[in-house]
Amino acid sequence: MSRIYNKVALIGLGLIAGSMAHAMRRHGLAGTITGYARSAETRAAARDIGLVDQVCDSSAEAVIDADLVVLAVPVGAMGAVAREIAPHLKPGCTLTDVGSVKQAVIEAVAPHLPNSVHFIPGHPLAGTEHSGPYSGFATLFENRWWLITPQPDADAEAVTKLRALCEGMGANVDEMDAAHHDLVLAVVSHTPHLIAYTMVGVADHLRRVSQSEVIKYSASGFRDFTRIAASDPTMWRDVFLTNKEATLDILGRFTEELFMLQRAIRMEDGEQLFDYFTRTRAIRRGIIEAGQDTDAPDFGRSKVT
Amino acid sequence: MSRIYNKVALIGLGLIAGSMAHAMRRHGLAGTITGYARSAETRAAARDIGLVDQVCDSSAEAVIDADLVVLAVPVGAMGAVAREIAPHLKPGCTLTDVGSVKQAVIEAVAPHLPNSVHFIPGHPLAGTEHSGPYSGFATLFENRWWLITPQPDADAEAVTKLRALCEGMGANVDEMDAAHHDLVLAVVSHTPHLIAYTMVGVADHLRRVSQSEVIKYSASGFRDFTRIAASDPTMWRDVFLTNKEATLDILGRFTEELFMLQRAIRMEDGEQLFDYFTRTRAIRRGIIEAGQDTDAPDFGRSKVT
Repeated sequence: MSRIYNKVALIGLGLIAGSMAHAMRRHGLAGTITGYARSAETRAAARDIGLVDQVCDSSAEAVIDADLVVLAVPVGAMGAVAREIAPHLKPGCTLTDVGSVKQAVIEAVAPHLPNSVHFIPGHPLAGTEHSGPYSGFATLFENRWWLITPQPDADAEAVTKLRALCEGMGANVDEMDAAHHDLVLAVVSHTPHLIAYTMVGVADHLRRVSQSEVIKYSASGFRDFTRIAASDPTMWRDVFLTNKEATLDILGRFTEELFMLQRAIRMEDGEQLFDYFTRTRAIRRGIIEAGQDTDAPDFGRSKVT
Repeated sequence: MSRIYNKVALIGLGLIAGSMAHAMRRHGLAGTITGYARSAETRAAARDIGLVDQVCDSSAEAVIDADLVVLAVPVGAMGAVAREIAPHLKPGCTLTDVGSVKQAVIEAVAPHLPNSVHFIPGHPLAGTEHSGPYSGFATLFENRWWLITPQPDADAEAVTKLRALCEGMGANVDEMDAAHHDLVLAVVSHTPHLIAYTMVGVADHLRRVSQSEVIKYSASGFRDFTRIAASDPTMWRDVFLTNKEATLDILGRFTEELFMLQRAIRMEDGEQLFDYFTRTRAIRRGIIEAGQDTDAPDFGRSKVT
């Protein structure tokens, strides 16, 4: 794979930015990589492990001369960062982000940018429950989807280069409208996360079942929810605040459906339950056939020793 | 490990019974193992792979002379099977089951049994999303909990032997009251499964997001729910029908909590969301420290190739 950008600046040095640094290096996609994080502790950690070529003490310094600038901060911080770096961006550079919500990021970021900057919002559908500068790894994006939501008048060459970068890191790229992105993500990511947080919260609060019982007996289903509910709280707070309408919309559908199943349990309608539980198997098969999950039992989960 | 029972009969030859057969053989815990399944196809498969020493064509034949009989059928079928085998049970033998609900199984099974049989209900908290005679493996129970719910007047020696068998297969054993078992399981297993089925159902029904989008973009959280929602429909129908009260109780708590978080999103109460998402991390840490899940990112999930 050959170099796509001479200089890439990563603003934010968490799981996604760190994984991008590892992946760009492994595949030789960037000449130089600079980085900045608001926390001095994160910057020190990134320097310590040589995560990027240069860790800068200001975002302005990091973006100087960069051909690609990546905003990899929580969605709620994107606007402030864009305002901070806007005067220092190289004319003709591309600015992208990795936020889980797209309409709110566009509204927060676009007004600050000079016309000479190509803003192409993006979102890699990849992650783990871990966060911070030590959590990244080069293969995070392999065979994962990277959604980009360029405006209709976006510069075609800039889009092509950004796509090539994502593909160079192993991802598949799809383009879609920002509003549709936010709805899709409310279904496949945001609502599932909220539900997982809720279920773990319920178990935490219940007095009739002790926390030690919840922990000991968690392998019967519950522990899967706790992985998702261990994700970064700041990131997820911002997701729900900024993708509010779509999340409330899907939550409404979820509650409706849950009440229907709850009623089937109360009325002892075994046929309805059986039919429902049979249909959901097809989606699992589709996901495995599409290469988006493993068919190994229990995810081929690592053995705890 | 030395032999604990001379002859063990497995009624039902799915994931749990199959895994018991593999584990008992590996550790030399049983002299002879017989098996029976209602479906001729399952019996043929079990014979084909030599899952047990003898696959019988009736449950009566399978239990003759058995020192331990294991009911490994869906909870809703336990009563009928108990009635069928009761006249053929050896006096002094132990009968156990592996059902996910305990009060309903006791009510369904106990009335059929002669006084000479030691009935010790049990439930291994172990499984995968796969089912059937091919899905078992010898290590399924290692470091998992096996709950038994003996009556207060249960024969101490029979309980000790059953515990030894479970421990011999690698499990940890806890004893508890059947009603408490059903409440605990409603929290750590039954409600999480119902919620997962519901979320997958919502995604399946939604017309504004296509099924192919749901499948392609599932790695952003949704796919975790689909694994649980791919579990055996008959088994889960029976669980909800027979642990109805506890499940409805916990579902009520879940909905209450979900509405609280939904309101926090609607009112844009970021602090409440952040605090909630921070507390749930502690439970995940507890589960990892208790050796009940891996700390590897994404469960150390098998790579899809």
